[in-house]
Amino acid sequence: MNELSTLARFGDVRAQFPGMITGEGKPWHYLDTAATAQKPRVVIDAMARALGEDYATVHRGVYARSAEMTLAYEGARRRVAEFIGGSEDEIVFTRGATEAINLVAATWGMENIGPGDRILLSVLEHHSNIVPWQMLAERTGAQIDICPLTSDGCIDLDAAEAMLTERHKLVALAHVSNVLGSVLDAKRAADLAHGVGAKLLLDGCQAAPRLKVDVAAIGCDFYVFSAHKLYGPTGIGALWARSEILAAMPPYQGGGSMIDRVTFEKTTYAPPPQRFEAGTPAIAEAIALHAAVDFIEAIGLDNVHAHERALVAKLREELGAMNDITLFGPADSAGIVSFALGQGSGTVHPHDLGTILDEADVAIRAGHHCAQPLMDHLGVPATARASFGIYSDESDIVALLEGIARTRRIFA
Amino acid sequence: MNELSTLARFGDVRAQFPGMITGEGKPWHYLDTAATAQKPRVVIDAMARALGEDYATVHRGVYARSAEMTLAYEGARRRVAEFIGGSEDEIVFTRGATEAINLVAATWGMENIGPGDRILLSVLEHHSNIVPWQMLAERTGAQIDICPLTSDGCIDLDAAEAMLTERHKLVALAHVSNVLGSVLDAKRAADLAHGVGAKLLLDGCQAAPRLKVDVAAIGCDFYVFSAHKLYGPTGIGALWARSEILAAMPPYQGGGSMIDRVTFEKTTYAPPPQRFEAGTPAIAEAIALHAAVDFIEAIGLDNVHAHERALVAKLREELGAMNDITLFGPADSAGIVSFALGQGSGTVHPHDLGTILDEADVAIRAGHHCAQPLMDHLGVPATARASFGIYSDESDIVALLEGIARTRRIFA
Repeated sequence: MNELSTLARFGDVRAQFPGMITGEGKPWHYLDTAATAQKPRVVIDAMARALGEDYATVHRGVYARSAEMTLAYEGARRRVAEFIGGSEDEIVFTRGATEAINLVAATWGMENIGPGDRILLSVLEHHSNIVPWQMLAERTGAQIDICPLTSDGCIDLDAAEAMLTERHKLVALAHVSNVLGSVLDAKRAADLAHGVGAKLLLDGCQAAPRLKVDVAAIGCDFYVFSAHKLYGPTGIGALWARSEILAAMPPYQGGGSMIDRVTFEKTTYAPPPQRFEAGTPAIAEAIALHAAVDFIEAIGLDNVHAHERALVAKLREELGAMNDITLFGPADSAGIVSFALGQGSGTVHPHDLGTILDEADVAIRAGHHCAQPLMDHLGVPATARASFGIYSDESDIVALLEGIARTRRIFA
Repeated sequence: MNELSTLARFGDVRAQFPGMITGEGKPWHYLDTAATAQKPRVVIDAMARALGEDYATVHRGVYARSAEMTLAYEGARRRVAEFIGGSEDEIVFTRGATEAINLVAATWGMENIGPGDRILLSVLEHHSNIVPWQMLAERTGAQIDICPLTSDGCIDLDAAEAMLTERHKLVALAHVSNVLGSVLDAKRAADLAHGVGAKLLLDGCQAAPRLKVDVAAIGCDFYVFSAHKLYGPTGIGALWARSEILAAMPPYQGGGSMIDRVTFEKTTYAPPPQRFEAGTPAIAEAIALHAAVDFIEAIGLDNVHAHERALVAKLREELGAMNDITLFGPADSAGIVSFALGQGSGTVHPHDLGTILDEADVAIRAGHHCAQPLMDHLGVPATARASFGIYSDESDIVALLEGIARTRRIFA
C-alpha cells in the first residue's frame, strides 16, 4: 500500500470540513462525494462574507461596494476559466451542470441540429446528459446513438469511431462516469468527433474535482461542471464553450443584464458571457466557488487524483477478495467504486446495505445514480456506490468494510 | 410625521444586518434595496449551517442526514407556499424571478400561445418581464401589446380593459414597479385577464418583500419572485403556478430528479414540482430562503409596508419641496422613490449624483433599472432611485438629503 503514503499529507484536510462530523460529534464516514462534496470552512466563510459585510449587487451600482462586488464576481469567472484552461469570456455561470447542458441544447442545439442529424451519447451517461438531448431530438427530428462500453465499463471509443458519421453534429460524453469512475480518453474523443465535423461536449461533473482538466489540451468544444461537486456551494455551476461557438449562440433566458438595448420594437443582446446570464446572478455562490477552486488547487489536482486512486485501489483490493461482492467499473476508477453484495437470491438490496451502514455513520449512495440506462446495461436495478473526496481516508474504508461484514451477518 | 412612529419599533432590526456597516465601521446608508436586499444574520447563519454541519444532498441519499436535508428542503418549499398563499406542490424553486418567467414562457407559453395570439404587458415592466415574452412572440408569431400608465405612473387598468380581446392569452404585469414603486390592483388585473380567458402572471419581485401577498385572494395564475430581494440569498427564487396549470406544463430543463424513468427509447417525467427542478437544486439557498421568510414574517408584512410607506412619505415630502427635483411615480409608492435633480441643461446626471452620494456612504441606484421602455416613456435616459428596506430609517433620508445638497453645490 505504498500509494497510500500520499494520504498522510492530507491529514489535516479533513478537519477543515465541518460536515465531516456527525451530530454526535463523531467522525462521519461520508462516501457520497460523487453526489455532492462537503465544503471546507474557507468556502462557507467566503459565502457568509459575500452575503454579509461585502454584500451588494453586481454590474449595476454606482457605489463602490457594488463595483467591488462586480470585480469579485468577474474575478471568480476568471479563476474558473484558468482552472480548466479556458479564457474568462468563455465561462457562463449557470445553476449547475444540468442547466449548462440544457443551455447548450436549447441554444447551440436548436441552431445547429436538424432533422436527420445525429447525436452520439454513451450507455453510462448521467440523466442530465441524456434527457436534454432527447428533448432536443424530439424538437428537431434528430436521432440519438448510444456508444457501448468496454467490458470493464469504459466508453468504447473504438466503437464510437465505427459509429460516427458525417450526420453526427454532437458527441456528448461523461469525462468521468459518476457510477463507475471510468475516465474517458477525452483527447481521442475530441479528435474522433472533429474527424466527422461534430462538436464534443464533456460532462465534467466528476472529472473537475478529480483530475487536472485542460480544455485547450483536450480540444473539446463544451465543458460543464457543478460547483457543489467541487467542494463549492450549491446553486452554481459553469459552462465553458469555445469563444467562437459562444459568440454565435442565441440567448437562452431573457431578462436584465443580458441585453444591449430593450424597446418594444426590437431588443438587442449583450455579447457573451453576459448574453447567457439573465437576471441577478448567483453572486455569493460565484465568490464561494472561487474559494473552492483556490482550495482545491492549493492541494493540487494531481495530488487529489493520486489520493483517490490509492483509496480506490485499497477498497477494490479488499472488496475483490470477497466472494459475495461484485465490483463494477475499471480498476483505475477515479475515486468511485460501485459494487453489489450477495448473488442471485442472496443479493442484498443496496438500499438495505445503505441503511445498515448509516447506523455505523457510513454514508454511501444506493440507487440508480441518475443513470438508469447504465443500470439496465449492468442488469441491476441499483448499485451500492462508495465515492471518495479529498477528505476521505483509510478510516472510511475500514468503517465501510465493517459495515459490510455486519450487513452480511444480518442477512445471513 | 406621525406615521414614522412605526419606525421606532424596528430600531434593533438594522443591527441584525452585517451589510449595513461600511468597511470603516460606519453606518451605511443603503438605499438600493430594490436592486437587492441586505441579509440578516439569521439568513447568513442558516446558509452556513446548511453548507457546513448539516450538509448533504436531497431526494437521493439512504442515510439519515440526506433524509433530514430533504425534509428541510421540502420544508422551505412549504414555507414559501404558505408565505404567498399557495400550496407546496405549486412552488417551483428557480434561480430567480427571471428564470421563473423564462420557464413559464418556454413551457406554458410554447404550449398555449400561437400565431396571432396576444400578450399584454405594461410600459413599466422590468426587462425580465419583457424579453422572455419577446422571445416567445418571435418563436410563435404572437403579438405583444403594451398597456399605458396613468399620469402618476400606475398601470392603467382602464386602458387594459379596453385593450384586452379574446386573442389575449396572457397578461404579465409587475405587482409593484421596480422604478416607481406603483402598486398594481392585482385582483382587478386578474379579473380583467380572466374576463377574456387570459392568464395573469405577476412579477412579484418588489411586492413580495413589501406587501402581504395572497395568490388565492388575488386570483392570479402565475406569481414569481427572487429570494435575494426578500432578504434571502442569491441563487434562488420561486415560481408559483396554479396546480392544474403546472400539471399540464411540459418540462423545462431535462436531467436528474425531474424524471420518472429514463431509457434511450422513452423517458417519462415526474409530477410537479419535481418535473421542473432538474439537477441538484440550490439546497442551502432554499434553507436560507426559509430563514428569510421566517425573519420577514416575524416582523410582519403589514408592518414592513407601513414602515416603508412612512419613509416614502417623508422623502417625497422633502424632495417635493425642492424646486429642482422632479419626482416620478405615485405618492403611495411601496418603498421606492425615483427622481431627477436639476432641469433642462442644469440636469445632474443620476450617475454623477450617485457617485457623489457614495462618498458620503449613501448608496442609491442610478440608471435605467432594467426598464428602458419606461425610461423612454419618462423621457429620461436614467433616474436616481432611492429604495427602502426593513432596515432603513430616517438617518438614511437625512444622509441622502445632505448628499443632494452637496451635489447641488458642486454643480452650481
